[in-house]
Amino acid sequence: MDHERLERQIRFLLEIDKLKSVLRQTILTDFSRQENSVEHSWHVAVMALLFQEYAAERNLELFRAVRMLLIHDLVEIDAGDTFCYDEAANAVKAEREVAAADRIFALLPADQARELRALWDEFEAGETPESRFAAALDRLQPLLHNWATRGERWQYNDVRSTQVIERNRPIGDGAPDLWAYAARLIEDAVERGYLAP
Amino acid sequence: MDHERLERQIRFLLEIDKLKSVLRQTILTDFSRQENSVEHSWHVAVMALLFQEYAAERNLELFRAVRMLLIHDLVEIDAGDTFCYDEAANAVKAEREVAAADRIFALLPADQARELRALWDEFEAGETPESRFAAALDRLQPLLHNWATRGERWQYNDVRSTQVIERNRPIGDGAPDLWAYAARLIEDAVERGYLAP
Repeated sequence: MDHERLERQIRFLLEIDKLKSVLRQTILTDFSRQENSVEHSWHVAVMALLFQEYAAERNLELFRAVRMLLIHDLVEIDAGDTFCYDEAANAVKAEREVAAADRIFALLPADQARELRALWDEFEAGETPESRFAAALDRLQPLLHNWATRGERWQYNDVRSTQVIERNRPIGDGAPDLWAYAARLIEDAVERGYLAP
Repeated sequence: MDHERLERQIRFLLEIDKLKSVLRQTILTDFSRQENSVEHSWHVAVMALLFQEYAAERNLELFRAVRMLLIHDLVEIDAGDTFCYDEAANAVKAEREVAAADRIFALLPADQARELRALWDEFEAGETPESRFAAALDRLQPLLHNWATRGERWQYNDVRSTQVIERNRPIGDGAPDLWAYAARLIEDAVERGYLAP
């Protein structure tokens, strides 16, 4: 066994523990606290296990999408979670995240660094059926949480329905049926007063 | 689209959010708080993406192991996390967890309930290369955390090295090289005074 190789893998695995402390804008469905990026990553990965049937391209390689979802937020260890409706922060987000990817994946042995970096790049580019499906779930999960918590964080952050529709429309590229569902959920949220029209 | 089917899937996805509030005995590597079962599940799933090369059976179906790891703790939503060194609690653990599996997977459409339940049963039985590999990672991850946090929770729970060796020996069935590494980690923990001999 190559001990140096295993030590690098272990260092990476200990490093990514930090993602458990990166908080997101969404809260848990029991309203108890903000969700962190690891919890979100797990939730969307499980979602992928159930939702292949709604993918725009049903023959996609599901494990590829799951691997992307498991690692898509690792860059937030350095770059933090960027609130999707914060335009100023999003303007410089890409640069910060690329620097983070350069550092974090490089902790691994070169072959695995390349493999995970390629998955992250593919997710970010959004040009494959797998990455578009993964991106759809990445957006649907917080929408579900916001609906289930009666829009508490939408109200707290002064978010309006037009912004939520714009943000979630790309769900349709990866999973058209889920976008139809999401659009009804947004309408319902407005009707119930969870979300400002 | 079958709306009733999607509604069942969504109900399941909202239900499993509760696993984020099930606390484990391990703490995060920055000592800040106890880890929860979702964070553990994500961590072992990522570990699986890196460690196939150490599996006893290298030709195992990796995605099958990853799916098991993503859902293996869902029963804790009802049954709670059972501390591995609590003998009394472990004696009645199986019964509580089977009842939990009966309830939780049944929230899904029948075909997906069967599929996830079969994966959970396979993980619990530990008779396939995939389930033995998954079980090895399920044990290695908290060992790594305990080592990285200088054995704080071992000391708090009055755990001794003979117990840790017994608990982790099955790592060898799923990933012999990782058991060799783990055994050295346990020795090192005793030498450093993290763990009572």
